[in-house]
Amino acid sequence: MSAVLKMPDAARGNLPGHRVLLGTERKLLLDCGVGFGPYTLAYQTYGALNAQRSNAILVCHALTGDQFVAEEHPVTGKAGWWATMVGPGLPLDTDRYFIICANVLGGCMGSSGPMEINPATGKPYGLGFPVITIGDIVRSQKMLIDHLGIDKLFCVIGGSMGGMQVLQWVSSFPDNVFCAVPIASSARHSAQNIAFHEVGRQAIVADPDWCGGNYLEEGKRPHRGLAVARMAAHITYLSEPALHRKFGRALQDRAKVTYGFDADFQVESYLRYQGSTFVDRFDANSYLYITRAMDYFDLAAEHGGVLSRAFTGTKVRFCLVSFTSDWLFPTPESRAIVHALNAAMANVSFVEIQTDKGHDAFLLDEPELDKVLKGFLEGCAEHAGLKRG
Amino acid sequence: MSAVLKMPDAARGNLPGHRVLLGTERKLLLDCGVGFGPYTLAYQTYGALNAQRSNAILVCHALTGDQFVAEEHPVTGKAGWWATMVGPGLPLDTDRYFIICANVLGGCMGSSGPMEINPATGKPYGLGFPVITIGDIVRSQKMLIDHLGIDKLFCVIGGSMGGMQVLQWVSSFPDNVFCAVPIASSARHSAQNIAFHEVGRQAIVADPDWCGGNYLEEGKRPHRGLAVARMAAHITYLSEPALHRKFGRALQDRAKVTYGFDADFQVESYLRYQGSTFVDRFDANSYLYITRAMDYFDLAAEHGGVLSRAFTGTKVRFCLVSFTSDWLFPTPESRAIVHALNAAMANVSFVEIQTDKGHDAFLLDEPELDKVLKGFLEGCAEHAGLKRG
Repeated sequence: MSAVLKMPDAARGNLPGHRVLLGTERKLLLDCGVGFGPYTLAYQTYGALNAQRSNAILVCHALTGDQFVAEEHPVTGKAGWWATMVGPGLPLDTDRYFIICANVLGGCMGSSGPMEINPATGKPYGLGFPVITIGDIVRSQKMLIDHLGIDKLFCVIGGSMGGMQVLQWVSSFPDNVFCAVPIASSARHSAQNIAFHEVGRQAIVADPDWCGGNYLEEGKRPHRGLAVARMAAHITYLSEPALHRKFGRALQDRAKVTYGFDADFQVESYLRYQGSTFVDRFDANSYLYITRAMDYFDLAAEHGGVLSRAFTGTKVRFCLVSFTSDWLFPTPESRAIVHALNAAMANVSFVEIQTDKGHDAFLLDEPELDKVLKGFLEGCAEHAGLKRG
Repeated sequence: MSAVLKMPDAARGNLPGHRVLLGTERKLLLDCGVGFGPYTLAYQTYGALNAQRSNAILVCHALTGDQFVAEEHPVTGKAGWWATMVGPGLPLDTDRYFIICANVLGGCMGSSGPMEINPATGKPYGLGFPVITIGDIVRSQKMLIDHLGIDKLFCVIGGSMGGMQVLQWVSSFPDNVFCAVPIASSARHSAQNIAFHEVGRQAIVADPDWCGGNYLEEGKRPHRGLAVARMAAHITYLSEPALHRKFGRALQDRAKVTYGFDADFQVESYLRYQGSTFVDRFDANSYLYITRAMDYFDLAAEHGGVLSRAFTGTKVRFCLVSFTSDWLFPTPESRAIVHALNAAMANVSFVEIQTDKGHDAFLLDEPELDKVLKGFLEGCAEHAGLKRG
């Protein structure tokens, strides 16, 4: 493992990988009405783009993911977040496909976001960054794809918030996508999920070190609030059976409870660890912005409340995946999308995978998911006339 | 509505109702090994104790409940938390039964707890208060029942943490209870529930105004942390379908989203309100202690890991109730208790009530619950030879 970068004090200028300045000729028109730009997207690619430029797969990352899909993370030193899925011979086979993943607009791994420097002021954007939507994130990615000279993506794929981006992609740019894989996702963020996000945001803004969003300039970090936000969210990514299987009521390095407020239980120790490590790699304001983008997501609302109209006449081939123990984006959310796609007479397959791993199952070793994705992508590649690598 | 009391700066000495000093002759031996006392329990009663002292029902309150079961709450001015259940002609019929409810040890409505004055120091206990368990809470209640001259309670009843106390009562004092009603409860706190509690505790201790637990002496209050803890917990008391039915994605007093971090959604506004009102009536350190007592609860562990042994030879009649949409104390938790009671050849009935109201259903208007409790109590009263009031 190579030496890892320290959490930079301001911008992420020293991260490895690609960075491109977009929106220089025409600004990115955000849903909030602001014309934004120029802006930076930081991205990684794996594999090679073929001569026809027809083998590109855009991977859309989830809330706290980033562009380091299949390589050591420069801040944490850990393996890429989808290293089990992206690589030679893996379902997203880098011998065959050209994989692209960009840190989302509003993120904190090099793309323009609240921790980056606002060129207009020379200071970090902070809350001066515009509130963005999943639609904005996708339009910013479309500019990147244009910049890369790719007219049609072979596939757009992602889990959770990544799946929201997939749905937005096929709705906004139906002619620029051949096939689409939204995993453990939803066409609109539920009331319960908005509620959990609001708890996280309130934990952050309750931390005095948040400084009204100005912590970078004040030389502070709302680490305690962000850690609490992460802890609450982390529970929702797992399932009760998985927590029971992994931890149950097992104690942490002790034979008896201590009758105190130490982390007596392993599950407490684990959660605290999740919170404390998260703050080293993630920016609190980015957490506010990206959770907000998810809350605002409601694809049907853009189409008069009728979800199927988001897919009218689509030629995109779809594969949806949900997990039985996912209670954050439960199966009925995926089924509602399938029903809308059926109503739009789209080509769609849907798999509910039996697992106790909860929402996080899409990030974990789940052989059934590998099989489903491999099969779907191979079938689509044949239909798209993609040659074997 | 009469004028309400302000959240007192130190002890709750000016609350209405009964207070009794217990443990004066012999101390209360706590599970942590400390001999504690004398200690105060604040309690309320409704109805009249009959001449045989045989019609007493002990109501055990949940995590943030208190002794004000069936009357206006002196701090919030709201109706009692079980006013729908306790009163003349109601299932817990005050024309017939003598209802007792005590604020739990460690609580903050007049019973000895971290916000009360430690007689040894003349200052609030704070973290000097011993860490207590459900067993300790129940033993403290037994001293109250002894003090009231009641040898055998007709019934012990409670939901959630109240149900834990019910189970502990029949296990510790099987000869002093005629019938028992644990509602939406569990014989041991699950890993997921410990995790949610830990998030709440971390939110509190992350608030600088918590002052290492010493906030009363510092003249501060960790209101922000406690509000976040309450918001996170409140989501777990509801169900996704109920949140969807009540709020969905409806906006709060606005036609469009504002592209900001205001409470655009009704569910956000509702949650913030839940957090902000909670801090007026609840003590942050009490929240730490009582959640800990729940975490530690594992009735089988006291009996070699075999739950049925907690009920060996019991003559107590049981009625268990769970709710279909309760994901905090889901039906399998109640079913495990029923199985243990069956193994112990106990007299037990069990009802799972169909509702979308989640864990909080036991506190809400749920006619089926009324019917079940009324029927069970009437049957038991007949068996116990209780005369009609």
